[in-house]
Amino acid sequence: MVKLALGSLGDSFSATSVKAYVAEFIATLLFVFAGVGSAIAYGQLTNGGALDPAGLVAIAIAHALALFVGVSIAANVSGGHLNPAVTFGLAVGGHITILTGLFYWVAQLLGASVACLLLKFVTHGKAIPTHGVTGISALEGVVMEIVITFALVYTVYATAVDPKKGSLGTIAPIAIGFIVGANILAAGPFSGGSMNPARSFGPAVAAGNFAGNWVYWVGPLIGGGLAGLVYGDVFIASASYQPVAGQSYA
Amino acid sequence: MVKLALGSLGDSFSATSVKAYVAEFIATLLFVFAGVGSAIAYGQLTNGGALDPAGLVAIAIAHALALFVGVSIAANVSGGHLNPAVTFGLAVGGHITILTGLFYWVAQLLGASVACLLLKFVTHGKAIPTHGVTGISALEGVVMEIVITFALVYTVYATAVDPKKGSLGTIAPIAIGFIVGANILAAGPFSGGSMNPARSFGPAVAAGNFAGNWVYWVGPLIGGGLAGLVYGDVFIASASYQPVAGQSYA
Amino acid sequence: MVKLALGSLGDSFSATSVKAYVAEFIATLLFVFAGVGSAIAYGQLTNGGALDPAGLVAIAIAHALALFVGVSIAANVSGGHLNPAVTFGLAVGGHITILTGLFYWVAQLLGASVACLLLKFVTHGKAIPTHGVTGISALEGVVMEIVITFALVYTVYATAVDPKKGSLGTIAPIAIGFIVGANILAAGPFSGGSMNPARSFGPAVAAGNFAGNWVYWVGPLIGGGLAGLVYGDVFIASASYQPVAGQSYA
Amino acid sequence: MVKLALGSLGDSFSATSVKAYVAEFIATLLFVFAGVGSAIAYGQLTNGGALDPAGLVAIAIAHALALFVGVSIAANVSGGHLNPAVTFGLAVGGHITILTGLFYWVAQLLGASVACLLLKFVTHGKAIPTHGVTGISALEGVVMEIVITFALVYTVYATAVDPKKGSLGTIAPIAIGFIVGANILAAGPFSGGSMNPARSFGPAVAAGNFAGNWVYWVGPLIGGGLAGLVYGDVFIASASYQPVAGQSYA
Repeated sequence: MVKLALGSLGDSFSATSVKAYVAEFIATLLFVFAGVGSAIAYGQLTNGGALDPAGLVAIAIAHALALFVGVSIAANVSGGHLNPAVTFGLAVGGHITILTGLFYWVAQLLGASVACLLLKFVTHGKAIPTHGVTGISALEGVVMEIVITFALVYTVYATAVDPKKGSLGTIAPIAIGFIVGANILAAGPFSGGSMNPARSFGPAVAAGNFAGNWVYWVGPLIGGGLAGLVYGDVFIASASYQPVAGQSYA
Repeated sequence: MVKLALGSLGDSFSATSVKAYVAEFIATLLFVFAGVGSAIAYGQLTNGGALDPAGLVAIAIAHALALFVGVSIAANVSGGHLNPAVTFGLAVGGHITILTGLFYWVAQLLGASVACLLLKFVTHGKAIPTHGVTGISALEGVVMEIVITFALVYTVYATAVDPKKGSLGTIAPIAIGFIVGANILAAGPFSGGSMNPARSFGPAVAAGNFAGNWVYWVGPLIGGGLAGLVYGDVFIASASYQPVAGQSYA
Repeated sequence: MVKLALGSLGDSFSATSVKAYVAEFIATLLFVFAGVGSAIAYGQLTNGGALDPAGLVAIAIAHALALFVGVSIAANVSGGHLNPAVTFGLAVGGHITILTGLFYWVAQLLGASVACLLLKFVTHGKAIPTHGVTGISALEGVVMEIVITFALVYTVYATAVDPKKGSLGTIAPIAIGFIVGANILAAGPFSGGSMNPARSFGPAVAAGNFAGNWVYWVGPLIGGGLAGLVYGDVFIASASYQPVAGQSYA
Repeated sequence: MVKLALGSLGDSFSATSVKAYVAEFIATLLFVFAGVGSAIAYGQLTNGGALDPAGLVAIAIAHALALFVGVSIAANVSGGHLNPAVTFGLAVGGHITILTGLFYWVAQLLGASVACLLLKFVTHGKAIPTHGVTGISALEGVVMEIVITFALVYTVYATAVDPKKGSLGTIAPIAIGFIVGANILAAGPFSGGSMNPARSFGPAVAAGNFAGNWVYWVGPLIGGGLAGLVYGDVFIASASYQPVAGQSYA
């Protein structure tokens, strides 16, 4: 059940809301700086060579570690989304209003763009690599991004949003970062493994190249929205929770 | 001591049980998607080249991270098995009934199969790599899978099932995922390092090739069952627990 | 708002303060030993070959893991800085006095230097690699180090210093170590990815080569100081904390 | 101050003590199986080629993950030593008696030996790689092992033994495993990076080759003993603990 709520402008401009936008801006900036930076670093070490398995490992680990930390440093202020698809998935489940969510989007897109412009400067003008599909169709790329973003937002729900999360909450930022690392190891050579419109938007701004960028809006938003619907309806909707009959392993 | 219990059909069809099957289906799907996907990605980057150390690292890390997250996102609903050998090992110790366990198996096998069919679509029809032994006999492969699955299910018992687990429970999903990563780094070039009949079944379905698939049922089920027996009898069976005499390091 | 406080010599020579210096000395020594050691190991395996992606992964992981552990083993005694830029960033926010901070610096620089001299001995006199910029200007290197050190010290504030940190405190040392790993994967081929004047100072001492060493003082100290200012003023300064309006995800 | 205590045979044969020996045997077996297995796997993938950076990463990660899990699965029963140098370091600090510690050693050495004999079987008779120094003298190898084992046992003390450890205890097994991973990335190409007489003893048994094995007893035992002395005397000996004057970062 979609639980989208508009919200009021007053709430979206309170002091705590503005702090949340600043936290999203900074955390997204730092995440994208390390993530996109690792792709540039690969090009630098290989003189622009084609991606090889060691390079895929480097890029996947950089994203996994940086997203884990990015979520951690914003978690207590903004919830640590760093990703329009996460914000959308949470809006679908009624965990953030549309208005506040739009300001989150602006902060995330700004943070990613500033990160890529900074990268261009500190790397002495290296080209900023943008996301695009390789060896598959745009539709296949969209479905790839749907599946892996579903995994990401479902993880956010299960480990950070669900009131039954218990001690999982302590390791939630690690889980959120690491599912992105795992998914890049699978999707990297095909769709790039974005799961995040801001992560794809920033490089497009810095490179001035938006070709195929729509794939990284359509796929992640559908995947994130689906995760919000499924998790919210199946696992949170129930009024009360009881342990599974026939098994006692918690 | 084997503590297998049949259970009642009514319990296996309660609302909470059905939610557990859904959670197992989704979590296994997402784990197998990233894990098998990383093996396909390696083939894509190397034009189907033979596995090299960087590729082994990529595949091991993908499985470690994805299983950690898969266990996390199902833990509070189904216990986060994602693996018929884990379910069997827990049934042997009396922690899940046979009937409920069978439905877990169905959910896990379905999730793994759907993951591999999805992978076939999103990779534009790439071949799905199946498990098989390399340079060793089937018996040696079975023993390899026994040892490493014993390690996995023993880890599940010690960190997630044992009532004495204490704060280990907080990092249990990480330990469960990471022992699989470590074992793939050792067993990968020989048996593939499955530890999980569902992980081997899904690719066999998508590839339509079940040759040697029995190895990944016999080995993991024996290893998982043994772990349930050993851990249950030696470390849980005792009525009361006391600290070790002569050492105070907890 | 800069909150620098001088402090008294008496406080800086109390028994607990001296223990803190010892803890910083040992932890920095062990961190730098593994970190710089991994760079020497790469040279040994490749006969001094140019850095490649697998080597960058090795070096980044070594730093990530060793810093995580180094912060852990000193956390309860000294706070686990291991880095003059972290100490400076905390001094700017009023979390350590200038006098005590200076003794932290001495302990950190000594620990890093002893580590590199030990490395020279145990590797049979291998050259100790020093930090320097590659393919970028010194100014670009300074800005690179400002951005990535900002990320590091901001992470220290958000996960370890902020009174609102909650269960994030449990994983703070992991976050602090892993942001350094992520940033090395991005900055390694350009500025080396130091984020830490002591990490750059120790090799310079052992190699007797301080060319360009100023970059790794200016960049990290500006980045760390900025993080102290921004985090302290925006997220800690407020007298009371309230949840963000319009979103309930904590 | 050395706090070695002999202990009584009765205590060393209580039911809980025997369980501790079983736990050490199993956990050391599983750790060594994955660790040594990863070195054999590298040889298999490269037809016995010389170690390269990707292989060093694979072996370091295998040891880091497997030791983390090995410590976790034994922690609540035996304390999770898996290593004669850890047991010795704890005996020096008075945390385990000499008699009980000797039974720990037997369990650890047996576990490591069985692991390597199993590896020989499941890999169809592959040679089991033993530890030895490369490009450095035996003395330099001993000092290398002293430094890195000091780091390991110091980490055990700071995160798992120290009564002031607080929430660090939750991530202690991760820290203990990961310092070994970091140190292998530095020491691997020189001394092999053992830090553990059992880890070196098992392969020597399976290969029937004890040449140079003494290095991996002398170095680790000195390093572990020193860590027990230093940590115990400086950080635990004090009757009461007080926060560091002049800094409030906990």
